[in-house]
Amino acid sequence: MNKQDLIAQIKAKRSFLCIGLDTDPHKIPKVLQESEDPVFEFNKQIIEATAQYAVAYKPNLAFYEAQGEKGWQSLRKTLAVIPPHVFIIADAKRADIGNTSHQYAKAFFEDLKADAVTIAPYMGEDSVKPFLSYTERWTVLLALTSNSGSQDFQLKKLADGSFLFEEVLKTAITWGTDQNMMFVVGATNASYLQRVRQIVPMHFLLVPGVGAQGGSLAEVAQNGLNKDVGLLVNSSREIIYASNGVDFAEAAAKKAHKIQLEMAELLQQNELL
Amino acid sequence: MNKQDLIAQIKAKRSFLCIGLDTDPHKIPKVLQESEDPVFEFNKQIIEATAQYAVAYKPNLAFYEAQGEKGWQSLRKTLAVIPPHVFIIADAKRADIGNTSHQYAKAFFEDLKADAVTIAPYMGEDSVKPFLSYTERWTVLLALTSNSGSQDFQLKKLADGSFLFEEVLKTAITWGTDQNMMFVVGATNASYLQRVRQIVPMHFLLVPGVGAQGGSLAEVAQNGLNKDVGLLVNSSREIIYASNGVDFAEAAAKKAHKIQLEMAELLQQNELL
Repeated sequence: MNKQDLIAQIKAKRSFLCIGLDTDPHKIPKVLQESEDPVFEFNKQIIEATAQYAVAYKPNLAFYEAQGEKGWQSLRKTLAVIPPHVFIIADAKRADIGNTSHQYAKAFFEDLKADAVTIAPYMGEDSVKPFLSYTERWTVLLALTSNSGSQDFQLKKLADGSFLFEEVLKTAITWGTDQNMMFVVGATNASYLQRVRQIVPMHFLLVPGVGAQGGSLAEVAQNGLNKDVGLLVNSSREIIYASNGVDFAEAAAKKAHKIQLEMAELLQQNELL
Repeated sequence: MNKQDLIAQIKAKRSFLCIGLDTDPHKIPKVLQESEDPVFEFNKQIIEATAQYAVAYKPNLAFYEAQGEKGWQSLRKTLAVIPPHVFIIADAKRADIGNTSHQYAKAFFEDLKADAVTIAPYMGEDSVKPFLSYTERWTVLLALTSNSGSQDFQLKKLADGSFLFEEVLKTAITWGTDQNMMFVVGATNASYLQRVRQIVPMHFLLVPGVGAQGGSLAEVAQNGLNKDVGLLVNSSREIIYASNGVDFAEAAAKKAHKIQLEMAELLQQNELL
């Protein structure tokens, strides 16, 4: 999916919500535990109930890999039921030397047909380039994550006074464009969004950490929106585990709708609709 | 496998060779292309031919993931034919927020039963800790990699004058011990090994980049060996693709044996045998 189509979808749905499919078999409602593939069945019902409110789904690979071949199969079936106009982010946080990253790109872009994949920057340019060689696919590079460990290295000051995450942004924008790169910027560090926007005013940002991790949507919008909207805000557990009863899909839809309405309001306030 | 058993194996085999199973279906000899699972068949024959010279195997997950469920199955079957006393490193370069890293740890330590997994440091402590909570399993953290992209961030100078990879080492040794952590240090930057050894004199280092990527084994040994040997030197393509004819396993064994003999010599010179 290209940037124009993503923006069009955001405006049509009045939403920049990404739903994280971090589906843990142990957290799936009892009512589904007897089905042939509980993970897929759960995802399918979540997707059907929420697709009108979300512009993107983000399955986190860890939850599927922990189930081995079966998990990989659940993931593949899940991706097949995501409506074709919805953006798919494989949250994989991969990267390796060039010839190996090429294999990961093949796995996520060719085999699973994801629109985007999250990438860790530590190994530098040649570990990222193979992902950028695909047209209308996206590399979503970790810049500033939402976890406490972001303090350890991402917020270290370099000799020139900038934070490591700023150096990652400044370097990475020489590798790709705002048409094939996005950056992960955690909402729990929303005050840093202004610094991010100074370096990457045009790029889309994928923002985790709203909801269960404590970030504020209004604050993210205030500091992160640009003229193309430029934000995908992710919520995982808060939506998909809104209820663990028979009403789990309905509860997820209700939660997603609530967030979508907030987003529509923020888009309107910023004259983006 | 614990550190003492690993050292014992190294001394018994007079080798600190790790063989990378970066098995690309397109590079498998024609003679195997018709078998039911060419990747597994190739790995099996490589392992049988080389296990006497290698103390560790390191399948790189990217090559298996690129084949989807089938690749995951080939990997599982491969791990099952590695002799039980040989160290298994899942080269996955994973890391995510805590609850997600826990899922990856489950995938690699519980499901695949690897002894070790490679981990990217960018997301910091809580992304690494779940892997360290397993006893007699190992976290192999990227410090200084062998690719050209290591220049981009790993070799950036911090405000205190140290390189980022040195900060990663200094920080990471507060998370684990030399009984459950190793570090990846590329042989193509062997001159940095001395700096690494100043910070982590006791830890095992996993050294890629010898062979196809151009690093020198003697130089690595000179700067990297410690009283426990403390090195696993990896070679992948140079060994597994030594021939693409019917003699591929024999050629791989010959190449592995040659490296093992060099290693025995270096161990002897350093009075480690």
